Amino acid sequence: MKFICTKNEFSEAIGNVSKAVSSKSPIPALEGIKLSLKGNILELTGYDLELGIKTQLNVKAERDGEYVVNARLLSEITRKMPSDEICIDINEKMNVNITCGYTEYNISALAADEYPELPAFDREKSVSVSQNILKNMINQTIYAVSSNDNKPILTGELFDIDESGSFSMVALDGFRLAVRNEKINCTEKYSLVVPSKALAETARLLKDDDSRCEFYTNGKHIIFDISGYLVFSRLLDGEFHNYKASIPTDFNTEIIIKTKELMEALDRCTLLISEKNKSPIRCEFADGQLSISCQTPVGKISDEMSVDINGNPVTIGFNNRFAIEALKAADTDKVRLQMNGSNRPIKILPMMGDSFTYLLMPVTLRS
Amino acid sequence: MKFICTKNEFSEAIGNVSKAVSSKSPIPALEGIKLSLKGNILELTGYDLELGIKTQLNVKAERDGEYVVNARLLSEITRKMPSDEICIDINEKMNVNITCGYTEYNISALAADEYPELPAFDREKSVSVSQNILKNMINQTIYAVSSNDNKPILTGELFDIDESGSFSMVALDGFRLAVRNEKINCTEKYSLVVPSKALAETARLLKDDDSRCEFYTNGKHIIFDISGYLVFSRLLDGEFHNYKASIPTDFNTEIIIKTKELMEALDRCTLLISEKNKSPIRCEFADGQLSISCQTPVGKISDEMSVDINGNPVTIGFNNRFAIEALKAADTDKVRLQMNGSNRPIKILPMMGDSFTYLLMPVTLRS
Repeated sequence: MKFICTKNEFSEAIGNVSKAVSSKSPIPALEGIKLSLKGNILELTGYDLELGIKTQLNVKAERDGEYVVNARLLSEITRKMPSDEICIDINEKMNVNITCGYTEYNISALAADEYPELPAFDREKSVSVSQNILKNMINQTIYAVSSNDNKPILTGELFDIDESGSFSMVALDGFRLAVRNEKINCTEKYSLVVPSKALAETARLLKDDDSRCEFYTNGKHIIFDISGYLVFSRLLDGEFHNYKASIPTDFNTEIIIKTKELMEALDRCTLLISEKNKSPIRCEFADGQLSISCQTPVGKISDEMSVDINGNPVTIGFNNRFAIEALKAADTDKVRLQMNGSNRPIKILPMMGDSFTYLLMPVTLRS
Repeated sequence: MKFICTKNEFSEAIGNVSKAVSSKSPIPALEGIKLSLKGNILELTGYDLELGIKTQLNVKAERDGEYVVNARLLSEITRKMPSDEICIDINEKMNVNITCGYTEYNISALAADEYPELPAFDREKSVSVSQNILKNMINQTIYAVSSNDNKPILTGELFDIDESGSFSMVALDGFRLAVRNEKINCTEKYSLVVPSKALAETARLLKDDDSRCEFYTNGKHIIFDISGYLVFSRLLDGEFHNYKASIPTDFNTEIIIKTKELMEALDRCTLLISEKNKSPIRCEFADGQLSISCQTPVGKISDEMSVDINGNPVTIGFNNRFAIEALKAADTDKVRLQMNGSNRPIKILPMMGDSFTYLLMPVTLRS
């Protein structure tokens, strides 16, 4: 294969498909990007057997072909080239010749038949969402995905879509839960669990505008089609937790609080907490006031802020990191906290509506 | 002790003296900052027994005293405080109370008598230099300091000052040498070897303008007095290498070359080189042309650029990292390279004069 391309376009495409390339694998082909040239279309593929990313570039082509080239090396070589026009020539002896101005690299390729096939797809039925909405749905829930492999199903997020076009994205790890809802134009029911790595890479590729993206599924895999990029992922097998039953529908106390102010106070508590010196954050909501305190062998802290309280006063304890991550994902100036005493989960909602619902398990306070 | 200070001033002072605090020490006091309050002057000291940094702040004082507080904790608490006015109150029971707005921390102090004494100094005879010049002298030579403890004297830089006011700062590690010269107003001879860590911290505190700084020595230690900060360091014992004898005074080939262009070409070679796959860079200077090449098991690269050559053509090999570090420190658009064949050191000079002189040992090329 032989083609000429522009440095920036090629570099961007390599950078994006590289996210699906294994950085270390006993199979050298999995550390590579597959380059397939047919006519003027160069297709680039990265695939680590779980996640695949594919894109195409228009290039000045001279000779078709299909080879695998080490992703890290190809990316760094391209990035450091001295000018904009790069010529890549790979011959049957697997010699890769990359030139740009007076600079000439010679490295080795691998045969394309050593590269795994991406899953096959029927692309008839798709779900269509605005890119900015899908990006926001992922970014507002992914923090609550389990990082623990004990329950593999919880290392992904549930896509819970019904015929009325209600789309909920759900993440939970046993200590907290995040649900993000949107209305979409969909007349079919879907229940898929997508690994969080695929979602993180999808969010990275999604734009902040309302251009559309589609996703397709064959029941075992999903493809996201995002303006020029295809992200393939296997789905997670198994029954997702019945999340709806966990979400309380009533409350005894409702609090309205400034998100940033609370986050900064929790952040200050975090200074005293470490793996060795764990301690819950103690929050007393009473008389229009939140009193926060925390004590570890390092020292103690107390803090106060004004809040709007409706209902019973409550004293509750929680994990600092979990609370900070939820408030950060909320991404709104104020949040509503709904509680049912000190032993039941805290529910975090936006000021209006329920575009997101976060739950946080309380931690028992000593004394 | 009890005082009120402004968050930003206190935070900056803590950040700077912290650079001399051990991050991990079996002696807890060495992980702390000594705070000494007399009248309205708060003195902050960090000292790891090799390097000390001391500064003073004007504060609103209520009660004198002297205590040691953990540096990391004090720094993080200060940085995360909600508003600008911070009150610190340390009592005889070693309770540290830090308040700011509604936020209140309680941590523990250590007694000041557990803190080591900084070296005593006669501060009569000083050497005076512009801050920007001293900063530049350090930054242009420190790359060549040895990081190997086999010869401790080479982990510092020689300050070689004579009665005529010639000041040379010298670093060498057996593979390369860096000398930086300035004329200063000095009528005494000094020969000191200052540890590179003290120089790095000194350079960080030095301003980019021509305000003065002074340094004093008692033969065993040095103090740099830099607009409000005192940096104390022990000096290194032993005989520094006779560097002047190593610098060739003649050459057979002189080359003028664009620094950035050469650096980028070497950087491209570096992609193929690793700890596992070492190889020298091969440079052929001939016919107004530099041909660079490098080959490792990863692949090979060749590159070309136009250069001005005076004298004999030469083919020479060198270590990529050492060459890149020297060119980076040179910090001039073009450099002169002087050579005496392929087995003798390369001398790197600025286009005009000899404000810096870098030597690079060649590496023998196979074939």
